[in-house]
Amino acid sequence: MSVKTINVNKDILGVNESLALNLRKVFESNKTFVINLMAAPGAGKTSTILKLIEDLSGKFSIGVIEGDIASDVDSRKIQEKNIDVVQINTDGACHLDANMITAACSGLGIEGKDLIIIENVGNLVCPAEFNLGENLKVMILSVPEGHDKPLKYPLMFTESQALLINKVDLAPYTDFDMEQFQKTVKAMNPSIEMFPVSAKTGEGFEQLATWIGERIQAFKKTQG
Amino acid sequence: MSVKTINVNKDILGVNESLALNLRKVFESNKTFVINLMAAPGAGKTSTILKLIEDLSGKFSIGVIEGDIASDVDSRKIQEKNIDVVQINTDGACHLDANMITAACSGLGIEGKDLIIIENVGNLVCPAEFNLGENLKVMILSVPEGHDKPLKYPLMFTESQALLINKVDLAPYTDFDMEQFQKTVKAMNPSIEMFPVSAKTGEGFEQLATWIGERIQAFKKTQG
Repeated sequence: MSVKTINVNKDILGVNESLALNLRKVFESNKTFVINLMAAPGAGKTSTILKLIEDLSGKFSIGVIEGDIASDVDSRKIQEKNIDVVQINTDGACHLDANMITAACSGLGIEGKDLIIIENVGNLVCPAEFNLGENLKVMILSVPEGHDKPLKYPLMFTESQALLINKVDLAPYTDFDMEQFQKTVKAMNPSIEMFPVSAKTGEGFEQLATWIGERIQAFKKTQG
Repeated sequence: MSVKTINVNKDILGVNESLALNLRKVFESNKTFVINLMAAPGAGKTSTILKLIEDLSGKFSIGVIEGDIASDVDSRKIQEKNIDVVQINTDGACHLDANMITAACSGLGIEGKDLIIIENVGNLVCPAEFNLGENLKVMILSVPEGHDKPLKYPLMFTESQALLINKVDLAPYTDFDMEQFQKTVKAMNPSIEMFPVSAKTGEGFEQLATWIGERIQAFKKTQG
């Protein structure tokens, strides 16, 4: 089957890479650890961030960048927790890019922040192609989406360093095969860390917050 | 917040529109009714198609075009039902376009087909921008995705003529507010038809299949 290729994509990605490298340098000079959180719509990105704020804000100064096509529904939820947040509305674009993050960082103010969590646009496809200068790409796959997703959206699964398997509280009511799912993911990306969690019940978050905390501390040490 | 705009998008959409118009003429001259089925990953597109095949294949000759970034997981499920199917692998692209559908139709053979169902790439964003010569844009929002999605992914909700609210069997285990959700959608798109369904239990599919059947018959009459 012949499929159209739009070559302009490569140039866009090239420009994005150099902007992402600049961002990374700025983040490193501020000792700010950055997580790029990606998932399909409704997988639980915002509720995961809210839970992480609960678990990590005692130890670390946190900022959040919210990416959405439209609306500020999510950023208002973050603001209620007294956390600095900037909303990006992409006005149709299906992913965040390094240019948008550069603008958002001016609005957020990164000085003194230990951790910035970027909530990407709800999309299992394009966000995986655009580096944002982050230290960690973290993805969420929620149980009701089904265990066959790694084969259908491979790039997100191979690019991410951590995978949250969210909504495990719904597992008894679905045919999600956790063992098969984890086996498929490990075959595609042997070094990925997987965390079965429920942002609703809090299950699995202690382990996740500990792991992220250790990564932040290790990063700070390498930055002197 | 300033957001980068890539102007090439308009030209791509213009070329797609004229290809989509050509496709529509071909479909009409064959009296083939076409549904463009769109949803986020894991909302239940393939299981909905399998259920519709069950309900409609006694009355209508059906063909299916499956769109995925990678894999032929879905098209093999359709093939097991003895239904003609063509798999498009977009190799990274996050939506189907009219050019891909033109190629897929040669492979499928549309002569004698009353209904072609196109399963778009799992994505609530970009597929809504690309016409495929279809008669109906149908979207699925599954209950676990949450009732706040219309505000965050508005184009899909305003472009679709029908909305399946899938996985209603999971509603008791989530905080999905069906009344609020339907009210929000109706305010954005007053003429949209909404069908609460469960592709797992079959709930709501009789009504949906009847509605689609009536649309096919009405279309065939207008084509003489």
